[in-house]
Amino acid sequence: MPYINIKITDENVTKEQKEALIAGATQLLVDVLNKNPKTTVVVIDEVNTDNWGIGGEVVTKLRSKT
Amino acid sequence: MPYINIKITDENVTKEQKEALIAGATQLLVDVLNKNPKTTVVVIDEVNTDNWGIGGEVVTKLRSKT
Amino acid sequence: MPYINIKITDENVTKEQKEALIAGATQLLVDVLNKNPKTTVVVIDEVNTDNWGIGGEVVTKLRSKT
Amino acid sequence: MPYINIKITDENVTKEQKEALIAGATQLLVDVLNKNPKTTVVVIDEVNTDNWGIGGEVVTKLRSKT
Amino acid sequence: MPYINIKITDENVTKEQKEALIAGATQLLVDVLNKNPKTTVVVIDEVNTDNWGIGGEVVTKLRSKT
Amino acid sequence: MPYINIKITDENVTKEQKEALIAGATQLLVDVLNKNPKTTVVVIDEVNTDNWGIGGEVVTKLRSKT
Repeated sequence: MPYINIKITDENVTKEQKEALIAGATQLLVDVLNKNPKTTVVVIDEVNTDNWGIGGEVVTKLRSKT
Repeated sequence: MPYINIKITDENVTKEQKEALIAGATQLLVDVLNKNPKTTVVVIDEVNTDNWGIGGEVVTKLRSKT
Repeated sequence: MPYINIKITDENVTKEQKEALIAGATQLLVDVLNKNPKTTVVVIDEVNTDNWGIGGEVVTKLRSKT
Repeated sequence: MPYINIKITDENVTKEQKEALIAGATQLLVDVLNKNPKTTVVVIDEVNTDNWGIGGEVVTKLRSKT
Repeated sequence: MPYINIKITDENVTKEQKEALIAGATQLLVDVLNKNPKTTVVVIDEVNTDNWGIGGEVVTKLRSKT
Repeated sequence: MPYINIKITDENVTKEQKEALIAGATQLLVDVLNKNPKTTVVVIDEVNTDNWGIGGEVVTKLRSKT
C-alpha cells in the first residue's frame, strides 16, 4: 500500500530505466517493511531542467556550465 | 482552503471529466467538513503510463496484457 | 489505481469525517473515470494551522480574528 | 536541504521568471532559517489550466469569463 | 539531485528500517540513472492509519478485520 | 492561486519563522508572476530528522557527526 514518488530531471530517461526504478522501489518496500507489492504504487515525475533548481540556480544553466 | 491533488494515468481524460473531478472533490470537502469552496484548490496530475507502476510493473505493460 | 491526496488544516477532524472523505473521493473516481476502487489510494494530511498560509497570513492568526 | 515545490498554472511563464522563483525561494530559506542553499531544491510544476480548479470551477473557464 | 518521497502507514517503523529505506532509495537512483547520491533527497512520510484509505476503506478498519 | 509546499526538517522552527516563510513565499509569487496573494496557499511540512535523508544518510546521524 505504500506510495512512492520519484522526481527526476527530464533528461532522456528510457522505458527500461523507468521499469527498473519501479521494480526496484517496489522491491525495496518489500525487503525493508514486508509491504505487499500488489498495492504498492510508484509514480515517476520527469521535470524540465528549466523547472528544477538547486543552490539557487536552474539546472539548465548548471548543465551548460559543465 | 483545502488542497486536493488527484493523480491519474494520462489516458484520454476529457475536459468534462476533469470538470466533474474538480466539482466533485470540492463539493466533497463542503459536504464532509463544511469547507469554503471559494478557496478550495484541486490539481489533477495526468501521469504517462510509462511513469506509473503498481505491483512492481509499469502500467503500460499491464495495459498491453489485458 | 488513482492516488488522491487531501490536505486540510488539523482542526478536530473526526474518524467518521475521514471515512467519509476516503469513501467519497474513491467513489468520485469510480463515477467519473470508472477507476477500480480496489487500488485507489486516498491519503489525508492534517496540517497544523501554524503551518498553513493563505493570503500571506498564517491560518492560526486568521482564525483568531474571526 | 529544504525542498520547495511551487505549483502554478501553465501560462507562458518565462525562463527568467522561473530563475527568479528558484533564486527567490532558495534565498527565503537562507534568510529565514539559515539553510544551506547548496542543498536546497526547488521544483516548479506548471499545471494545465484544464487541470486546476478553484471554487469548484476549472481555471480555463474562469479565465474565459474575465 | 533526485527527490524521492515514500509514504507509508505509521505502524512502528524503526530507525533502522528508515535508514534502510533512505540508503536503498538513494542507491537505486545511483544504479539506474547514475545520479549523484550527495544531492539525492529522500523524505519518508508516516501517515496515521486513520488517514489512509484503499478500496474506499480506512486502513485502521482493514487492519482490525484481519 | 499558486500552491507552495515547503518541506524542512523539524528542528525548532518558531511561529515567527513560519510566518516569515508564508509571507515571503506569497510575496515572491506576487513579485515574479503577479499572482493574486488572496488565493495563494503555502503549506509547511516539518519532517522528523529520522525521516529525511541526503547522500544516503539519515539527517539525525549527520547532525550528530557535526
